[in-house]
Amino acid sequence: MMTTILKIGGNVLNQPVQLADALDYFSTLKGPAILVHGGGRKASEVITAMGHRPLMVDGRRITDEPTLEIVTMVYAGLINKKIVAFLQQRNTNAIGLSGADGNAIIAHKRPVGTIDYGFAGDVDRVDAALLSGLLSLGLSPVLCSITHDEQGQLLNTNADTIANATAVALASLPQTVSLQYCFEFPGVMLDISDPSSAIKALTPAKYQELKKQGAIAGGMIPKLDNAFAALDKGVHEVVIGDLTTLRNGQGTHCRKGA
Amino acid sequence: MMTTILKIGGNVLNQPVQLADALDYFSTLKGPAILVHGGGRKASEVITAMGHRPLMVDGRRITDEPTLEIVTMVYAGLINKKIVAFLQQRNTNAIGLSGADGNAIIAHKRPVGTIDYGFAGDVDRVDAALLSGLLSLGLSPVLCSITHDEQGQLLNTNADTIANATAVALASLPQTVSLQYCFEFPGVMLDISDPSSAIKALTPAKYQELKKQGAIAGGMIPKLDNAFAALDKGVHEVVIGDLTTLRNGQGTHCRKGA
Repeated sequence: MMTTILKIGGNVLNQPVQLADALDYFSTLKGPAILVHGGGRKASEVITAMGHRPLMVDGRRITDEPTLEIVTMVYAGLINKKIVAFLQQRNTNAIGLSGADGNAIIAHKRPVGTIDYGFAGDVDRVDAALLSGLLSLGLSPVLCSITHDEQGQLLNTNADTIANATAVALASLPQTVSLQYCFEFPGVMLDISDPSSAIKALTPAKYQELKKQGAIAGGMIPKLDNAFAALDKGVHEVVIGDLTTLRNGQGTHCRKGA
Repeated sequence: MMTTILKIGGNVLNQPVQLADALDYFSTLKGPAILVHGGGRKASEVITAMGHRPLMVDGRRITDEPTLEIVTMVYAGLINKKIVAFLQQRNTNAIGLSGADGNAIIAHKRPVGTIDYGFAGDVDRVDAALLSGLLSLGLSPVLCSITHDEQGQLLNTNADTIANATAVALASLPQTVSLQYCFEFPGVMLDISDPSSAIKALTPAKYQELKKQGAIAGGMIPKLDNAFAALDKGVHEVVIGDLTTLRNGQGTHCRKGA
């Protein structure tokens, strides 16, 4: 049986209709399934409403202490519990988790380099046995992007990274794992303005070729580098697409073989 | 083996040293243990910081929609995850839950009477089998005071009631359950200004007698009415005290027999 890890992005979370669609999709997945979500726009809204200023460098959030309190409230509290309640409404027995819950995801505070990201966490270990134990109780884990360091410190962590590390950890059990990234495009696009340019399938060789040609660039490169690293570590496939393509078994399928 | 349900009150949550003490105590409990917490002062602080006004009638919160969002953020997000991270630091494998998680606690929105409490939830059912399943995985559930109605609606619920309903549900498995209320007094006091006036033991008969005499009054009456109702439904004992008395096996012990 295939285990699915579905990661939903900020643009899906921000729109109630798209979020409902994504939860409909998640609740109809066959076999064990884990949902991973980030934060979307809400954290910045609460930060502003509470009189702070969202701190960003190169599109990445700087997590000072008030920001950590607020992302913990918004990601692990508001968004995670709303998603869990909406999944229960769909008869999916969801259980929301931060990395501290059940010691699910252990991370360390990112060392200060040229930039001090504050309370940002880099993942050390995902406890696949815990997730597997919860799945065996009939529960569907819903992971938010808050982790901890086992010393009492919560940490703000990239949700793509959590999805990736969770897929790799489950693959090592071993299990057959499909890692699906749901975002606003029908797949990895050769021309962002042309939906028909979405790539159907990517092998490591084809990816390297397209990267060399400059046909794949920007933010897709770290996403795909991580995807192929996950395949190297035993994940069966990584699929990237929007809800319509994922639902139809389309989107960009990354696999080791052809 | 005795299962302990420990409920910590707002005055314990508000003070970092007392909270640390309470978590030390919880992490040294023998046998399966479940922690239940309310919200403390933080929710009102966030409500005010976000430009709303805390709405209270007779000391009870009115949960309008912005208030529900904020209590969900504060109870299920910030406070719950901080407690879980602090317990992990103490090598207690805690897992934080709202009532929506694992469908743990189902409630219904309180009907509008003379007062409209808004999104306040009255408990219908605690899923003891789920809690038992989590305990059997070596996890210690940490319940916050947010529940849901299975139709996608989160609800703000009294933490004392959650602790009580959880104790009754576990007792029905059956299990031997000790329900402990940790607050700022060494027990049920005959004279609030005299710590030595704490009652050591209460039976139903003695409670009725003291209530008739007016020696027990005010906020303790609903607490104790609920305690004795829990004993009637199979809970082994209800203990009320502060951290020092609970730790020493003192506090007010309510039991059916003498």
